[in-house]
Amino acid sequence: MSSWGSAVKISIFGESHGKGIGVVIDGLPSGERLDIEKIYVQMARRAPGKDKTSTPRLEKDIPDIISGILDDTTTGAPLCAVIGNTNTRSQDYGNVLSCPRPGHADFTGNIRYKGFNDIRGGGHFSGRLTAPIVFAGAVCRQILERRGIRFAAHIASVGNIEDQRFDPVAIPRELVERLSLSTFGLIDQTKETAMRELIEECRMSRDSIGGMVECAIVGVPAGAGSPMFDGIENVISSVVFGIPAVKGIEFGAGFEVSRMRGSQNNDEFYYDGETVKTRTNHHGGILGGISSGMPIIFRAAFKPTPSISSEQSTVDLQKHENAKLVINGRHDPCIVPRAVPVVEAAAAIAMVNILADVNKL
Amino acid sequence: MSSWGSAVKISIFGESHGKGIGVVIDGLPSGERLDIEKIYVQMARRAPGKDKTSTPRLEKDIPDIISGILDDTTTGAPLCAVIGNTNTRSQDYGNVLSCPRPGHADFTGNIRYKGFNDIRGGGHFSGRLTAPIVFAGAVCRQILERRGIRFAAHIASVGNIEDQRFDPVAIPRELVERLSLSTFGLIDQTKETAMRELIEECRMSRDSIGGMVECAIVGVPAGAGSPMFDGIENVISSVVFGIPAVKGIEFGAGFEVSRMRGSQNNDEFYYDGETVKTRTNHHGGILGGISSGMPIIFRAAFKPTPSISSEQSTVDLQKHENAKLVINGRHDPCIVPRAVPVVEAAAAIAMVNILADVNKL
Amino acid sequence: MSSWGSAVKISIFGESHGKGIGVVIDGLPSGERLDIEKIYVQMARRAPGKDKTSTPRLEKDIPDIISGILDDTTTGAPLCAVIGNTNTRSQDYGNVLSCPRPGHADFTGNIRYKGFNDIRGGGHFSGRLTAPIVFAGAVCRQILERRGIRFAAHIASVGNIEDQRFDPVAIPRELVERLSLSTFGLIDQTKETAMRELIEECRMSRDSIGGMVECAIVGVPAGAGSPMFDGIENVISSVVFGIPAVKGIEFGAGFEVSRMRGSQNNDEFYYDGETVKTRTNHHGGILGGISSGMPIIFRAAFKPTPSISSEQSTVDLQKHENAKLVINGRHDPCIVPRAVPVVEAAAAIAMVNILADVNKL
Amino acid sequence: MSSWGSAVKISIFGESHGKGIGVVIDGLPSGERLDIEKIYVQMARRAPGKDKTSTPRLEKDIPDIISGILDDTTTGAPLCAVIGNTNTRSQDYGNVLSCPRPGHADFTGNIRYKGFNDIRGGGHFSGRLTAPIVFAGAVCRQILERRGIRFAAHIASVGNIEDQRFDPVAIPRELVERLSLSTFGLIDQTKETAMRELIEECRMSRDSIGGMVECAIVGVPAGAGSPMFDGIENVISSVVFGIPAVKGIEFGAGFEVSRMRGSQNNDEFYYDGETVKTRTNHHGGILGGISSGMPIIFRAAFKPTPSISSEQSTVDLQKHENAKLVINGRHDPCIVPRAVPVVEAAAAIAMVNILADVNKL
Repeated sequence: MSSWGSAVKISIFGESHGKGIGVVIDGLPSGERLDIEKIYVQMARRAPGKDKTSTPRLEKDIPDIISGILDDTTTGAPLCAVIGNTNTRSQDYGNVLSCPRPGHADFTGNIRYKGFNDIRGGGHFSGRLTAPIVFAGAVCRQILERRGIRFAAHIASVGNIEDQRFDPVAIPRELVERLSLSTFGLIDQTKETAMRELIEECRMSRDSIGGMVECAIVGVPAGAGSPMFDGIENVISSVVFGIPAVKGIEFGAGFEVSRMRGSQNNDEFYYDGETVKTRTNHHGGILGGISSGMPIIFRAAFKPTPSISSEQSTVDLQKHENAKLVINGRHDPCIVPRAVPVVEAAAAIAMVNILADVNKL
Repeated sequence: MSSWGSAVKISIFGESHGKGIGVVIDGLPSGERLDIEKIYVQMARRAPGKDKTSTPRLEKDIPDIISGILDDTTTGAPLCAVIGNTNTRSQDYGNVLSCPRPGHADFTGNIRYKGFNDIRGGGHFSGRLTAPIVFAGAVCRQILERRGIRFAAHIASVGNIEDQRFDPVAIPRELVERLSLSTFGLIDQTKETAMRELIEECRMSRDSIGGMVECAIVGVPAGAGSPMFDGIENVISSVVFGIPAVKGIEFGAGFEVSRMRGSQNNDEFYYDGETVKTRTNHHGGILGGISSGMPIIFRAAFKPTPSISSEQSTVDLQKHENAKLVINGRHDPCIVPRAVPVVEAAAAIAMVNILADVNKL
Repeated sequence: MSSWGSAVKISIFGESHGKGIGVVIDGLPSGERLDIEKIYVQMARRAPGKDKTSTPRLEKDIPDIISGILDDTTTGAPLCAVIGNTNTRSQDYGNVLSCPRPGHADFTGNIRYKGFNDIRGGGHFSGRLTAPIVFAGAVCRQILERRGIRFAAHIASVGNIEDQRFDPVAIPRELVERLSLSTFGLIDQTKETAMRELIEECRMSRDSIGGMVECAIVGVPAGAGSPMFDGIENVISSVVFGIPAVKGIEFGAGFEVSRMRGSQNNDEFYYDGETVKTRTNHHGGILGGISSGMPIIFRAAFKPTPSISSEQSTVDLQKHENAKLVINGRHDPCIVPRAVPVVEAAAAIAMVNILADVNKL
Repeated sequence: MSSWGSAVKISIFGESHGKGIGVVIDGLPSGERLDIEKIYVQMARRAPGKDKTSTPRLEKDIPDIISGILDDTTTGAPLCAVIGNTNTRSQDYGNVLSCPRPGHADFTGNIRYKGFNDIRGGGHFSGRLTAPIVFAGAVCRQILERRGIRFAAHIASVGNIEDQRFDPVAIPRELVERLSLSTFGLIDQTKETAMRELIEECRMSRDSIGGMVECAIVGVPAGAGSPMFDGIENVISSVVFGIPAVKGIEFGAGFEVSRMRGSQNNDEFYYDGETVKTRTNHHGGILGGISSGMPIIFRAAFKPTPSISSEQSTVDLQKHENAKLVINGRHDPCIVPRAVPVVEAAAAIAMVNILADVNKL
């Protein structure tokens, strides 16, 4: 389903080529002043059309806040925001699924919804549905920033071109600030040219390319989260896999731990003044599902955009035979740059629940 | 929390050195005949003491089924199973946490529960709590096997020693059968010696080693799962991260997709008789959160056992100073072989819910 | 919270004098053709301004369906409907709560939301929020009607004037049809005049009056619902108490059972052809939380409209002293007639979940 | 289902004639010292065999606490308690349902579980399952009593014999204390003889009798609860209808409000020192779903025990024909006295969640 959360529930709605998309956020604390401009900034980071790396479609993703706010302050009632779909070109698509696009949810959605799902532009499976996720995340992050918790993500890789990783024990405040406003977020900004060239090369060859996003959450006090199924890893991953194209997630040293010895991987504790810290942070700020007070760090793998304009083999479900397909329309050859703020938003939505569940909001 | 599920809810309880551990499974379909012996087989696969690679403690993990079954058949009422703790040696530990063990949940649990959690043997964070997960999974898998759905996992790697991967488009029935009963599950069984030697080497050097488990779910019909937050990836990962020591999960080609081009990663559809299949399976049987009918494949990364017997640095929370710690007691230098049936169980618990949610149970 | 449901989740949003109100319905089956006109008919039954018994404010409660429907057919994606607030007169109210109105949620809402809730027109506590409940119920009932399940409610009483009760073992199809379209629903229509006169008398004396709504659900197959906390009584009451002003609910013979003997109250089974029925229906179609196949019958008690125009004693929270209050504005002296379709809607929302939970949708 | 709760989840298991019954309580705050004797006292209040008004079966309902407690103090891990079934006489019943008992869940359970449910003694539908509810409630109430919240219920009526009602604005502390330990709880203790005589008369005439329980919750601070579907009425009723035989619930003036005018029903606010109170309490301590700080008061109607020993008409599901049935065995002619502590327990389970959800635990 498109509803998620315990103390703070989000309910995402909309289809790519329908009237609009949006979100209801239920359970927000009251009295939280929201800087609406800052919400727009986050949405602009995700919006397409900023440069050659993204789709040239122009979307005016101005959310219309229907409820839950008075004088820019949360009332405690459910906050609903609707974003109209204005620049849809339905003629690009019909609604009878003939040839499912490889790598898309066309085929699985067709079976799941018996052919009644809106397939235009991917319908409810469209990456456009990440706009309300960014909106909800932007609301949650303002509430959390007020409590000293900050979010920053960057393009960890595009194809084989890798950015630096976060230093997991020391993430400079300036870096967090810079990344949280960036539209092509990198720690090592010298990698931007190479990444953009690779993306452009993929576009030129009618192809696309995958990548990775790394996210850090700093300022989370020790003791948030719960054992077993409500651990921070469980909660974050249950939101992050809600972002289309994510095929993997890892926390701290992640898959690298499978190759490590205990003596390497164990993070030793020490006192930094009054505070217990760890000298290394292979645990990614989470032990037993619960925050240690160290930065929470995770990476998500994004597959290459499935919409490529070279010819592909598929089936024709009407004719019951194998077929060839050429996808028209304009698509990002790499969604990773635009996915960065979506991952931050998912992290904020997860953390607002994790903290509320332990009475720390 | 230690409760999870929608249509079929599990509630895990117990602490390592308390009276017992167990699980309540609520929402099981009625009239399902359970082969109790087969449940024991699954629990024996996880049980320690089978050989040198695991802890020599003897546990008699015979579950006492309190309710929910009559004549070995589910009644539809909640099924509760209790496993007594018999071989506990509480003198190994006290309950006032002085020096948190690196890599364990001692420190975070202490903050979370204000020092009241049972720390003996890790308490509720103990790996022993995977026994009721295996029990619950063994119940769910029998129900699913009756519907043609099978689970098989193997040791994908121990340190740098890797097993073969599943062929994601063709997983032989015999392999599934063999792995689902194995206590040291490998596709390429010639790797066993090297893996055991590496594990033994770690034990000898008072160290431990991580690894990876790969799991396949075959026979899931196309159209199970839901978009966004109830996708199969979300649901499976929210259970799998409930297994202690898991730090990452990936589906299909997983993190490898971040380096791939769309033309490589997209799995082309074709008709195999009446059935739509894909020629490759980078998508791991899941598109848009929904099953495609191809095998569902995922890998989980396990960190090395944090309990190592060499001296480690930590803090003394009583004295508020840095300290040294030597962990006594007997611990698995590598939990991966015993984690294999736990991962299968987690997958079965996830899938029984996914199928029930779309009325396919 | 304002979110509810398991298989089919509703999330209600909006405040009386904000931009709008609405609902997201997540989890609807796909392929359900909706008669939009029939939805409007249900909303019109609840809408004020139809006659002297209700508030003269004109609301154009035309819901704008944003998502989830294509060609009037459910796509399976979340259905969102927004109803704009057009005829609000904010000057009637300010947003700093000085004197809480007796019988309203002004005081409790103020404490709960630390003074940040939108108090204009009752904000999120307003009876206007029943409009999206009726919308959601109208969608659910069409889906259920297609499966042979029908809903009918009537004004069981206004003050001391009582309508007939449903014959709990035989509810004529024509009665169900008539009531489900009625705006002043009565079994014995001769009571309308007396009821209207009583309501008018209350208006004239600057007072208001309570009443009761009785609802019948016919066509539910035996075997829906679950024991204990997911019984039909639990589920229906958890929705019905979401309707403002409800202070009690009873099923079947209800509170009368407290005065009955077992020999009277027990409903004897018999075969009506192939079908097991009961000769009486004190159990209201529910035994052990599960449907028996007999009509499900319940009654909800509504308190008199707390907004009365005679002077009342209250406190002044600003001045910290006792105070007098006169409520201006126009209010229904009796909400019961307009509550009838809301109760039916609540029943439909409950039943769509109950049936989905047992795979009967 | 038999699982319930948000911040604090309970999962009830067991069947009347199986190995045992019990409960898992997940999400309890850590560090709560529990007086185990006081828990036994609550369970003894519910236990049968105390006198002629209840069934002569002797149950040793000593709960075995498996987990979640160390040194009588909650660890924060799930608390599981198992109560063995010792005095079962399975020969009284078989497990193939031939003739469903009128008023019982035999028929509906049979349909729901396709004949696989354990029907011996009512199985999971048995009133015996209220023992773990009382256990869970006894744990929750100790936690709440420490925060100044107290629970008291009494036999409001047996048949037509009525006890006094609580004075809803002033409930003496001594009365609360007395009732919370009583096994035949009455405000006006002079009614005991008449009530017992009526119950005995019903037994002698092979019949049974219904009644009502009234419950007060005092000390709840204003501002607990949430609007719409998480209102205090919704939450309490969703637990209370989990008690077998409850057919109605009302809060404050309850059904009486349907006959009242607004000027009567509205409770005027006033300052009692610094505290805002109401002079009357028709609202039962709840406005808009949220606590006002006044005592929370509700009444639940219990149907007469359906097990009566006079001959009844029913059907024979094996032979597909109408039949006669005589129920043997020993049954309470009136469950109301034993239901009193169960209602208090349900209220405590509800309130611990309501308070946790607003961070007031």
